[in-house]
Amino acid sequence: MTSLADLDTPAALLDEARMDRAIARMQQRMGALGVALRPHVKTAKCLEVARRQRDAGARGITVSTLKEAEEFFAAGFDDILYAVGLAPQRIAHAFDLLRRGCRLKVVVDSVAAAQAIAQAARGAAMRPEVLIEIDTDGHRAGVPPESALLLEVGRALGGDGEAAFHHSLLVGVMTHCGASYECRGREALEAMAEQERARCVRAAERLRAAGLPCDIVSVGSTPTALFARRLDGVTEVRAGVYVFYDLVMAGLGVCTPEDIALSILTTVIGHQPAKGWVLTDGGWMAMSRDRGTMAQPLDQGYGLVCDEAGDVLADWIVHQANQEHGIVEHRGGAAAAGDVARRFPLGTRLRVLPNHACATAAQHGHYAVVREGRLLGRWARFSGW
Amino acid sequence: MTSLADLDTPAALLDEARMDRAIARMQQRMGALGVALRPHVKTAKCLEVARRQRDAGARGITVSTLKEAEEFFAAGFDDILYAVGLAPQRIAHAFDLLRRGCRLKVVVDSVAAAQAIAQAARGAAMRPEVLIEIDTDGHRAGVPPESALLLEVGRALGGDGEAAFHHSLLVGVMTHCGASYECRGREALEAMAEQERARCVRAAERLRAAGLPCDIVSVGSTPTALFARRLDGVTEVRAGVYVFYDLVMAGLGVCTPEDIALSILTTVIGHQPAKGWVLTDGGWMAMSRDRGTMAQPLDQGYGLVCDEAGDVLADWIVHQANQEHGIVEHRGGAAAAGDVARRFPLGTRLRVLPNHACATAAQHGHYAVVREGRLLGRWARFSGW
Repeated sequence: MTSLADLDTPAALLDEARMDRAIARMQQRMGALGVALRPHVKTAKCLEVARRQRDAGARGITVSTLKEAEEFFAAGFDDILYAVGLAPQRIAHAFDLLRRGCRLKVVVDSVAAAQAIAQAARGAAMRPEVLIEIDTDGHRAGVPPESALLLEVGRALGGDGEAAFHHSLLVGVMTHCGASYECRGREALEAMAEQERARCVRAAERLRAAGLPCDIVSVGSTPTALFARRLDGVTEVRAGVYVFYDLVMAGLGVCTPEDIALSILTTVIGHQPAKGWVLTDGGWMAMSRDRGTMAQPLDQGYGLVCDEAGDVLADWIVHQANQEHGIVEHRGGAAAAGDVARRFPLGTRLRVLPNHACATAAQHGHYAVVREGRLLGRWARFSGW
Repeated sequence: MTSLADLDTPAALLDEARMDRAIARMQQRMGALGVALRPHVKTAKCLEVARRQRDAGARGITVSTLKEAEEFFAAGFDDILYAVGLAPQRIAHAFDLLRRGCRLKVVVDSVAAAQAIAQAARGAAMRPEVLIEIDTDGHRAGVPPESALLLEVGRALGGDGEAAFHHSLLVGVMTHCGASYECRGREALEAMAEQERARCVRAAERLRAAGLPCDIVSVGSTPTALFARRLDGVTEVRAGVYVFYDLVMAGLGVCTPEDIALSILTTVIGHQPAKGWVLTDGGWMAMSRDRGTMAQPLDQGYGLVCDEAGDVLADWIVHQANQEHGIVEHRGGAAAAGDVARRFPLGTRLRVLPNHACATAAQHGHYAVVREGRLLGRWARFSGW
């Protein structure tokens, strides 16, 4: 199989050159800012993609599930940060990974969670590395950096004073500024990046001032990583979606549609000529239900349409989607669409750029890797928990 | 494994008793209306579920992809309607299924598609069974029932007059009234069911009056199936989501939340007590990005929360979702939520009812089948194309 024409649709296409450029851009930027890059592998869930990131200079990976930790550890990735608050039920699994040689780091943001892991560690004579999650933007989990709670959680990981410094499970702090996804414009993104940095560094300083160890200061999201002007006090950055980019990132000004490495190849299966509709086999099962651009100034529907070669067809979007039907329309409606059955005959192949790469990629079991219209191969991705 | 407590989360739970009641209800209703039931298996994509439907009296199945056709045919289901317009590229695959003994029926809604299959059939000396898709509600694909186009498509399937009657590939008409998902109240649903019936039957009558064969009149959606008062002239009904139901169906009045057979088991992983937030490991990866109730009078967020036993916790919904984080809130906000860390301690297990069963089920590789809190087993579902 060497041609796109041999691929059944819908299919997830991965543009190798675009991905390689995205990896190089982020790695170069982190190098310039003097911090390590720990990519979040939840976007691609693909060993080959993570290997490219590692080969480009990334140090360690970030995961969102212990399933990801297992898959990547089995493939030789042993420095893994599990960036979702550790439920007590998962402590045994985390310890099992540690015993097998995985340098797994886990995250807590409450005294209860800290006590649970500290108690389990004593019982099992283990010394897991624990980071405290810091809330730097109010959008999800984490401890406020100025709170008394921060020090309480820190102390719950291993006692007070000298003993704590030597025996604490605490190794650092981490934060994810998801609010960056709602920023508009360079200034707002730069300000959010600085907020993420400053608040997380402040939390680290308070822990250290209280005599607690805190070597790691881990921050990140794709927008804040690319818009940070300085990262003083930060030791590593985590970012995920940059490896593919998507229309939400393009809407933020983080990339252009031409940078997006993931697209869904679809086939025209019908028309409603009077309405200017082109029906394709790329429904929400292929695109996901993610409508991330709905809240942005330019709503891209379920995706922005390109020709089979990947060139954007300006103003053509997947306006509606059913399970296995996409309805492609021109933004200008039927009048602007013209004779759709003539322009996009039955069987025409179209690529669609996704709102949210993490969600769209998750609908597919593998990527068809393409370079200049040629198929290079098939890379598996995994799913589930 | 006999207890829910042994299940890792997030996990898709299938309540066997609720599913069996849903299957019996639909089959009984179709029997009372004197039509055959051809369930759409795209909701569950699960052999065991389809076998229950068949054992209850269903005749044949409906699929949305040829992958589904292959999976079900391999398991002994041989009467299959592929309900998505046949792309020319798929004709060879469809013929291959026919040659292997699958009684596959395919759908066209244009002269171009009809000519493509008629020409391929002549070339391959095949006689595929073809239905014309009828547009009864303007929501997606299909030919208007009163149009000249209807007869043109019919004739494109096999010539005119006596020859057509004996040699046409045409076997019937089919429609899916997706607009029923936007109806509010019994009267509107009954009216939509009658519109779907009347317009599809009218199309069949016009084809027959033109000397064309049209034995099958296939209609359906879960809401119109359950609200139809008569189905004169209809030979079979297709419905899918009824097998699990979901919050969109509950919002339409088609079922109650207590009828919903699919739920996602999640674990509490943290809190933001001041905001009244409960963080769980049930994010959009487990629930899907489907927000079908957003357009309904009662927006259920990413899902309605139940306790581990499945009893609805009124007014608690998954208000926001990230990939592996759900944020559960009370509709009344922090004041109404009370002390969330006390009410839902770390490690608490909650079930969440989905907006859209087809989308949520698609995020999972199998169902954990439960009866009265006991795990009966694991049923696989398939995915991809």
